[in-house]
Amino acid sequence: MSPLEFFRLQTREEVLALYPRFAPVGAEEVDLAAALGRVLAAPVPAPEDVPAFPRATMDGYALRAVDTFGAGVGAPQYLELKGEVPMGVVPARAVGLGEALRVPTGAMLPPGADAVVMLEYTAEHPDKTLEVRRPVAPGENVLQPGEDVGRGEVLFPAGSLLRPQDLGLLAALGVTRLTAHRRPRVAIWSSGDEIVPVNQKPGAGQVRDSNAYLAAAQVAQWGGIPALKGIIPDDFSALKSALAASLKEADLILISGGSSVGARDLSLEAIKALAGAEVLVHGVALRPGKPTILAAVGAPPLPLLGLPGHPASAAVVMEVLGRPLLARLAGLASPSLWGGEVAALLSRNLAGASGREDYVRVRLRREGENLWAEPVLGPSGLLSPLVKSDGLVMIPLGVEGLLRGEAVTVRLFS
Amino acid sequence: MSPLEFFRLQTREEVLALYPRFAPVGAEEVDLAAALGRVLAAPVPAPEDVPAFPRATMDGYALRAVDTFGAGVGAPQYLELKGEVPMGVVPARAVGLGEALRVPTGAMLPPGADAVVMLEYTAEHPDKTLEVRRPVAPGENVLQPGEDVGRGEVLFPAGSLLRPQDLGLLAALGVTRLTAHRRPRVAIWSSGDEIVPVNQKPGAGQVRDSNAYLAAAQVAQWGGIPALKGIIPDDFSALKSALAASLKEADLILISGGSSVGARDLSLEAIKALAGAEVLVHGVALRPGKPTILAAVGAPPLPLLGLPGHPASAAVVMEVLGRPLLARLAGLASPSLWGGEVAALLSRNLAGASGREDYVRVRLRREGENLWAEPVLGPSGLLSPLVKSDGLVMIPLGVEGLLRGEAVTVRLFS
Repeated sequence: MSPLEFFRLQTREEVLALYPRFAPVGAEEVDLAAALGRVLAAPVPAPEDVPAFPRATMDGYALRAVDTFGAGVGAPQYLELKGEVPMGVVPARAVGLGEALRVPTGAMLPPGADAVVMLEYTAEHPDKTLEVRRPVAPGENVLQPGEDVGRGEVLFPAGSLLRPQDLGLLAALGVTRLTAHRRPRVAIWSSGDEIVPVNQKPGAGQVRDSNAYLAAAQVAQWGGIPALKGIIPDDFSALKSALAASLKEADLILISGGSSVGARDLSLEAIKALAGAEVLVHGVALRPGKPTILAAVGAPPLPLLGLPGHPASAAVVMEVLGRPLLARLAGLASPSLWGGEVAALLSRNLAGASGREDYVRVRLRREGENLWAEPVLGPSGLLSPLVKSDGLVMIPLGVEGLLRGEAVTVRLFS
Repeated sequence: MSPLEFFRLQTREEVLALYPRFAPVGAEEVDLAAALGRVLAAPVPAPEDVPAFPRATMDGYALRAVDTFGAGVGAPQYLELKGEVPMGVVPARAVGLGEALRVPTGAMLPPGADAVVMLEYTAEHPDKTLEVRRPVAPGENVLQPGEDVGRGEVLFPAGSLLRPQDLGLLAALGVTRLTAHRRPRVAIWSSGDEIVPVNQKPGAGQVRDSNAYLAAAQVAQWGGIPALKGIIPDDFSALKSALAASLKEADLILISGGSSVGARDLSLEAIKALAGAEVLVHGVALRPGKPTILAAVGAPPLPLLGLPGHPASAAVVMEVLGRPLLARLAGLASPSLWGGEVAALLSRNLAGASGREDYVRVRLRREGENLWAEPVLGPSGLLSPLVKSDGLVMIPLGVEGLLRGEAVTVRLFS
């Protein structure tokens, strides 16, 4: 029997359907200034109205709209100018019928006024008369209290990823402390007798530990905290004790390689030997990426993802399976459906992988109005095709291939 | 004369054309493990070949291709199995004519062998005979030395932004220290008598300092180091001395507001009063974002960007003008042309802003095969429309508007 027959390949959807059994990591308090990219663990209601008071949205004059009805360039209305409202202060007086107060953008609307006429449609006369050449409707150029956000309204549900504008809104409301999920801690192991540390000159037949660096950078980019744990030789007890030690200090364990058949079996055996381990996936219907392992260890279950030894395969498995797993652990409610995607035209015919979802590296090239996706081919043991690429095009399961000129969605790397 | 006439509006292209006068920031040494998102200040040549030795790219048997010619299921070839090459070691023997050695993926090809036949097309017999059922060509399933990257080849030119796979390739080559541009330090000031710190309850007519938090998060997201400097009242000497102090500790100064006409003039006067200051831009043909200031201060010139006081305007100006300025300072050779863009259909008619490039906030909604961009309208003093949006659609200068169903490019926020 060929060792390949050990694999019962599972589809991407089957693997993703297993993720709900892993719970999001716990919560912690976070300062607003450090909350970029964090995921809320609890909904945030608005503690007050925004704005808290009626505000002018234009430089101009606060007045009663009724006083401007019928005003025109040829038939201006004349109002009595009663002074101005400086920024940041409570107006000293109200606006009565036939009166106006000068207001800058953002200033508080004085009581009595219900609209602002823009500077451009007015003229001030020396005798403190304001000439208005255009009518305004009640509420025009005014922001009402609570119009932006009403007090008690849920600003962000739990599971929201905080972006710059979200921090801006929270700042406007004085929300300076937030309850966010911890960043998931990810222990990253490499395995294989042939792997040497990056600062070491490999002997003949050896290679440096590139996978760990690649995976660590992906984890960091996606909001996790990577820990480079080191290299484990192809030895059952060494593998088992290394993985067991990580169970206490990580929310997710990644182990890449070994890429040989024997080492692959060894990793699987070591994983199976961990207390409370259940191997959920051993082999996925992805190309590249077939020799992928997913296990749940202990209770509550901690996920362990075994990555292929080939760097390009490991990188694709991380994109396609690792990233959603990290998103699940991070508590992210809805990983964006469109973030980092771009539409392009395929530059050449591509054959799919029979029985597997096929991920092809592509480089993007703009040509006039068109964006072309050019496949960058090469074996999955190579890193440079990945380096020359901007993203991935997926050929779905059961599709024989894609044709030159076909519209494809490119999933961008960064 | 209306104060608006002070503005001589410059287009986005005119503003961007001014950026080359600002030099990228200096370089520093960076550890590979901390190099994600950093920009190279010097090209990195490959210190060695990748791979350093011929490697098997499949599990199988190393042999001489000539020994397999004519092999088929009905007419297998028989070779003498001479043992195996374990991972990570130099093969103990060469492969002669009529001989084979078992090799795992990634192992060093033994001398004499020029190809690998995959496990699937072979059978081992008890008498150490290997049955081969398919021919292989010379070089098949073998990665030649330097095939991925040749020694001395420039891996990354100066100005490259380092992504996870780039770190993987550098790790594979043992490049553990890099020369990267410093992250640009950005001093962020808010100005205006009406602005209070975020941890303070605003009095009537006052608002909290949300712009600084928004801009700081944008700067951090784009690779800069933000420093929240505080709030300056609408006072000429306070403004001037605050800005002057930042000249020594920042690579870029941002100042937002004040949003009133008087405060705006004050900021401009304070900027003009700095030693060696030259105001390059005062007013841009963007909507929102008109009251934007760009100045060059001192020699070599340090950029100072004056942002509008309205949060949504400030956010758009940061996206459209601030981000490319930061990229220039960071030393980035070619800010991605497609990163963070997505094609969508416009959900309703949109009128453009006469004489200005118009940036409309949109929310994305997937409906079957189509992705719709739905405008989220609202005055630029409001933050919540920005929070509800996924990105921006631009209506170019001179275009009257866009029609419902029209294909648009959405520039994603994150």
